[in-house]
Amino acid sequence: MKFICAQQELNARTGVVLKAVPAKTTMSILQYIYIDAGEEGIRFFANDMENGIETKVEGTVEEAGYVAIEAALFSSIVRTLPDNEVTVTVDDNYLVTLDCESTHFTLPGRSGDDFTFPPEVDKTDAVTMRQATLKNFIAQTVFSVSTNDANRIMTGALLTIEENECSMIALDGHRIAMRKTELQSPVSGTKKAIISGKTLLKLRDILSDQAEKEVQIYFTQKLASFSVSDTFFTTRLIDGEYFDVSQMISGDYETKMQVGRRQFLEGIERAMTLSHDGDKKPIILGIQDQEMEIKVSSTRGSMNSLVMVKKDGKDILIGFNPKFLTDALRVIEDDELSIYFVNPKAPCYIRNEENNYLYMILPINFKTVE
Amino acid sequence: MKFICAQQELNARTGVVLKAVPAKTTMSILQYIYIDAGEEGIRFFANDMENGIETKVEGTVEEAGYVAIEAALFSSIVRTLPDNEVTVTVDDNYLVTLDCESTHFTLPGRSGDDFTFPPEVDKTDAVTMRQATLKNFIAQTVFSVSTNDANRIMTGALLTIEENECSMIALDGHRIAMRKTELQSPVSGTKKAIISGKTLLKLRDILSDQAEKEVQIYFTQKLASFSVSDTFFTTRLIDGEYFDVSQMISGDYETKMQVGRRQFLEGIERAMTLSHDGDKKPIILGIQDQEMEIKVSSTRGSMNSLVMVKKDGKDILIGFNPKFLTDALRVIEDDELSIYFVNPKAPCYIRNEENNYLYMILPINFKTVE
Repeated sequence: MKFICAQQELNARTGVVLKAVPAKTTMSILQYIYIDAGEEGIRFFANDMENGIETKVEGTVEEAGYVAIEAALFSSIVRTLPDNEVTVTVDDNYLVTLDCESTHFTLPGRSGDDFTFPPEVDKTDAVTMRQATLKNFIAQTVFSVSTNDANRIMTGALLTIEENECSMIALDGHRIAMRKTELQSPVSGTKKAIISGKTLLKLRDILSDQAEKEVQIYFTQKLASFSVSDTFFTTRLIDGEYFDVSQMISGDYETKMQVGRRQFLEGIERAMTLSHDGDKKPIILGIQDQEMEIKVSSTRGSMNSLVMVKKDGKDILIGFNPKFLTDALRVIEDDELSIYFVNPKAPCYIRNEENNYLYMILPINFKTVE
Repeated sequence: MKFICAQQELNARTGVVLKAVPAKTTMSILQYIYIDAGEEGIRFFANDMENGIETKVEGTVEEAGYVAIEAALFSSIVRTLPDNEVTVTVDDNYLVTLDCESTHFTLPGRSGDDFTFPPEVDKTDAVTMRQATLKNFIAQTVFSVSTNDANRIMTGALLTIEENECSMIALDGHRIAMRKTELQSPVSGTKKAIISGKTLLKLRDILSDQAEKEVQIYFTQKLASFSVSDTFFTTRLIDGEYFDVSQMISGDYETKMQVGRRQFLEGIERAMTLSHDGDKKPIILGIQDQEMEIKVSSTRGSMNSLVMVKKDGKDILIGFNPKFLTDALRVIEDDELSIYFVNPKAPCYIRNEENNYLYMILPINFKTVE
């Protein structure tokens, strides 16, 4: 095997497949990149058995062939090579050589006969959306998936595509994060996939922020495959029926508060300086006509801070885990938020008129201070 | 006690004294900042028994007094306060309140009767130098101090001021790093201080990069005190006689090589991709008339890379710990270096004509490959 490509391209493509190389494993082949050079061009594969990635490397094939090469080592070498053309050669004993300017590397490779390729997904029925939209959806919901493996389904987020509407939902038993948008190209029927939070974070890293770039998504019963530029990212879905979130959400409210996102966030961040790690001390919000009082009291000290608000409906005194509030407030783009409350034992909702985001957070009990 | 000052000033000054607050300690008072407000203004003190810091906070004292306050908590609160005036008040029970805009914090303080103030240093005989020079000296030598406590003296660097010359030396038994410069204001007599590497890193953080700013240094038998703007940083010196480095350094050589710093550094960094952590594999330099070959061979693979050089004297084949070379190459400002060799068992020297830097590195044995 022999191919030639630019160092920057080689480095970028190695970085992409590295997302599907596990840090630790008992099966050594999983830590290898499989390289295939032939009529279909130069292709890199990696597979950690949950996620598989195939990516195409721009370059010139001079001799067809294949090899499996240790991913971490290959990646660190490729990163330090000069910014110039790299010639990769593999001999009959799978000895790999890399030549770039006056630098010459020799590394032992493997045949890769024991390499498992990522599963093939039927690529006839695609859903197309903007990469930036999917990337934002992940950042705006993934913090709400559960980190507790006891309930597998909660460790994933639900991606739903229904005609021209696309949504992502994550929940962990204490809160729900939901994002919704209209697709430019409607699809027929409904597609649903529960994708693990860890996988979503990896997928996010290969998605582009550029507004025009698109991703094609292919769904099967067990798999979803994301086609991004010359890369296929294929993941095994979490099996099961997701929660019916519509049952958990109510539009009724007794109190509506409008507040500046930044001021609210900073007030909570100030209050959090008084909580030790792992300390479940709630912050208390006292909402009145013109202002909200943010209060906290712990063994370390106490704080209160006033934030100007606009309130409709009843006054309310309600306690929250401050982290759940900051997680949501940090990912909302609006400067002015509307937050809806029913009573101190019922969840609050942060949502906008267009209904393209909704964050539900359960309150926590607190003993009234003072 | 009551004083008023700007949040930014309060935050900056708290950050300075925090350098002398230990992360862990059995004496809880060491984790407190002692605040004194009175005729001498607002002063913050911290002391970890090795280093003591006193800093002046710009602001208005409305009522004299003092208090000791938990450093980490105070710092994290001050950081999140609005960018505006902060009023700090302490009552007779050492209860501290902070008021800033509509935010109000209450924290329990202590009398600080058990607080140990940093030792006083006689401030009559100062050495004055540029902060940027001292800051650079630290960065350019401190990596060469030993991290092994078995030889206490090696864990520090020697700062020497002799008439109009100032130098800093660090060594660990395998290498020497030395920097020298002329002072603008000569002093009488010789001043020497062995300062721990850990202390130097803390001191570096409070020194400014700005060319005009100066530091005054006061020396006693046991202490050195650095006066930086409104801050005194006082440290206990390492006791003992430092090594006579002039005995270890030789001007003789058999080979002189001139090489581009960047090309040499990149070549070594490439070679280092083949060494595992803790792997003491040497890199081998084969120096000939027009070029140097950098070679390495390990269980992971092998590399060779050619770098253009200008050589005077004999050809040489010599092995080094690559980290010792990169540590030195990263902190030298010159683009073109002169490196001097005697034989494969003798140290090499990287130094310039003006003699204001010298890096000595011992070679390591290697089995010749090929």
